[in-house]
Amino acid sequence: MPEKFDLGILGSGQLGLMMLLEGTPLGLRFSVCDTAQGPAVRFAHGYFRADGYREFVDSSQYVTYEFEHVDGRALEYAEEQNKLRPSLLPVKLKRDRSLEKEFYVRHGIPTARYVVADGKNEIMRAVKDMGDCVVKMCEGGYDGKGQYYFFDGRRDEVPEGAGKAIVEEFVRYENEASIICYRTPDGRMGAFEPSFNLNRNGILVYNYGPYRGSEMRDIAFRLMASLSYVGVMGIEFYNVGGRFIVNEFAPRVHNTGHHTLFGFSVSQFEQHVRAVAGLPVHEPMQFVPSGIVNILGRPLDAAARERILALGDTHPFWYGKDEVRRKRKMGHVNITGSTVEEVKEKIDKVMDILYNGHLDDYI
Amino acid sequence: MPEKFDLGILGSGQLGLMMLLEGTPLGLRFSVCDTAQGPAVRFAHGYFRADGYREFVDSSQYVTYEFEHVDGRALEYAEEQNKLRPSLLPVKLKRDRSLEKEFYVRHGIPTARYVVADGKNEIMRAVKDMGDCVVKMCEGGYDGKGQYYFFDGRRDEVPEGAGKAIVEEFVRYENEASIICYRTPDGRMGAFEPSFNLNRNGILVYNYGPYRGSEMRDIAFRLMASLSYVGVMGIEFYNVGGRFIVNEFAPRVHNTGHHTLFGFSVSQFEQHVRAVAGLPVHEPMQFVPSGIVNILGRPLDAAARERILALGDTHPFWYGKDEVRRKRKMGHVNITGSTVEEVKEKIDKVMDILYNGHLDDYI
Repeated sequence: MPEKFDLGILGSGQLGLMMLLEGTPLGLRFSVCDTAQGPAVRFAHGYFRADGYREFVDSSQYVTYEFEHVDGRALEYAEEQNKLRPSLLPVKLKRDRSLEKEFYVRHGIPTARYVVADGKNEIMRAVKDMGDCVVKMCEGGYDGKGQYYFFDGRRDEVPEGAGKAIVEEFVRYENEASIICYRTPDGRMGAFEPSFNLNRNGILVYNYGPYRGSEMRDIAFRLMASLSYVGVMGIEFYNVGGRFIVNEFAPRVHNTGHHTLFGFSVSQFEQHVRAVAGLPVHEPMQFVPSGIVNILGRPLDAAARERILALGDTHPFWYGKDEVRRKRKMGHVNITGSTVEEVKEKIDKVMDILYNGHLDDYI
Repeated sequence: MPEKFDLGILGSGQLGLMMLLEGTPLGLRFSVCDTAQGPAVRFAHGYFRADGYREFVDSSQYVTYEFEHVDGRALEYAEEQNKLRPSLLPVKLKRDRSLEKEFYVRHGIPTARYVVADGKNEIMRAVKDMGDCVVKMCEGGYDGKGQYYFFDGRRDEVPEGAGKAIVEEFVRYENEASIICYRTPDGRMGAFEPSFNLNRNGILVYNYGPYRGSEMRDIAFRLMASLSYVGVMGIEFYNVGGRFIVNEFAPRVHNTGHHTLFGFSVSQFEQHVRAVAGLPVHEPMQFVPSGIVNILGRPLDAAARERILALGDTHPFWYGKDEVRRKRKMGHVNITGSTVEEVKEKIDKVMDILYNGHLDDYI
């Protein structure tokens, strides 16, 4: 008799790894399907290569994904079999930014003004009309890739072969923020406390919370309900003069939710696994303020680990990836503290230890 | 070049598994050495059979143990190589109860009155002299094995071939309690908040805390200092009219410390790994009251998991052992709450779900 799994995870990166570490204790059996052999593979009960996606889906009660840019055949086959959670719809929106933006507008989700343009000529005309703006290619954008800025004299070069893009007004925000929310198969919704985020070159550097924003919660619930979403979702916002508008959402556990691993009654990873597997979930409690710093494009050598641990209430989380590369998320550091200010002070110290004022050399 | 590991763990049971799950994120590499292939093996970077103990020790920077009754050759070789943390001394005390008791007396650690007796005849004479008492065989005692009771008309049968034993006065205690404490290689000490424990037939059923007991902390520090101990230690106490006397200690992470996995700034497992590897440690903070119920001699079927999760702030932790056996620790359930009373109420509910008033059928 072929082996059976409770949950199949598409993708084998750090998000899958953390799902496994948090979900295995529940007594569930996991399989992983990926072209690459990422850090999650070692901890899974079963592993399928990308070509084995049918067997992967057939042997799993439910299928989820740790990344939206995974093998489309696996996603589609899992959806056909009524096993995919979250469903294919949010993935489709993420594969074409114009669909994502259109979805926001249609469902009354506040987002930056934009137009769609196809090819370099159309894009440059739209840029001229829009004024200060950012061009985001509709496909393949992730961690700040495929984005071109036009503001305050900066004029990036849009490549000749550019395809469809959205041309979005340049948002002069006070800061970025996000919320990690979830919805169960029977439609109950909840959220973790929002966080204040700092991104650089489109990559999260650090975040911390709790951060004000009941507005974010309302928007999150509207978006999840509109998608009949199942599982954990991360939504990134801009704070524009105290109002929050959506930058983008991720149909999965999210880098800005890693701080839920310490100081919370449940982590985003356990919450996702429980929601997707149809197990009971409850509104998370935040016991103490918390945050993370991403370890980007550098190793966690013994000296850095020692200095970080010496700060107290800090927990490095190394993903065990095979190779350190610039911009690559190699790990993160969890931080808790009695106050948000204390967490922020420790973040600054961890930033000094990791990047010594030269973050741009690593991303 | 042969592979190198930061930490080698002797034994591959659930305690080793939890060390790995909590220690791997620190970016350390672990190996495991055991005759059996327990649940920890799947998560380790390297695995050695018992006969490969030399290679196991040689390839590890430090060696620790998740259980004191492991292969003696490995322990002794690791001690010779100055790699064993904690050292061999506490293991020697645990291998002969009379040495353990003698150590307590010599170092002013309060413990129940006892005499040593060798062979059934001597034991039965001592029983007659002592009055209400318990006979504990000096070797091989664990989870209540090798113990014979004489009190209130109960008179257990000491086997004919009985060897050396201690005959200990029967302690009429109000309740049991324990403390999880730690000491670093440079002699700094600290402890988690103590817990209230309920044992049955010598096996922990549930525990919760925080529980009063600065007295326990003082005793813990004296014991660890006397042993020049390195790592996490669990010490079990009897509460006799508000005074705490030591029942026994365990030179390792301890079942009564599993509640530190939720609601604390650090778990006993991460703390042990950090102390043993010579990494910085800090006094743990307990964010909210917490406790556990052991899953003993039964599976965690889907219905039980669902009912337990429905209670809220409960996290089943299934160890993934190959076979369910009576008395066997198959997993535990972590519980947090806003008050100790709330934790205790949830413990009662989990007890009902798991044992339905018939605990004795499972242990």
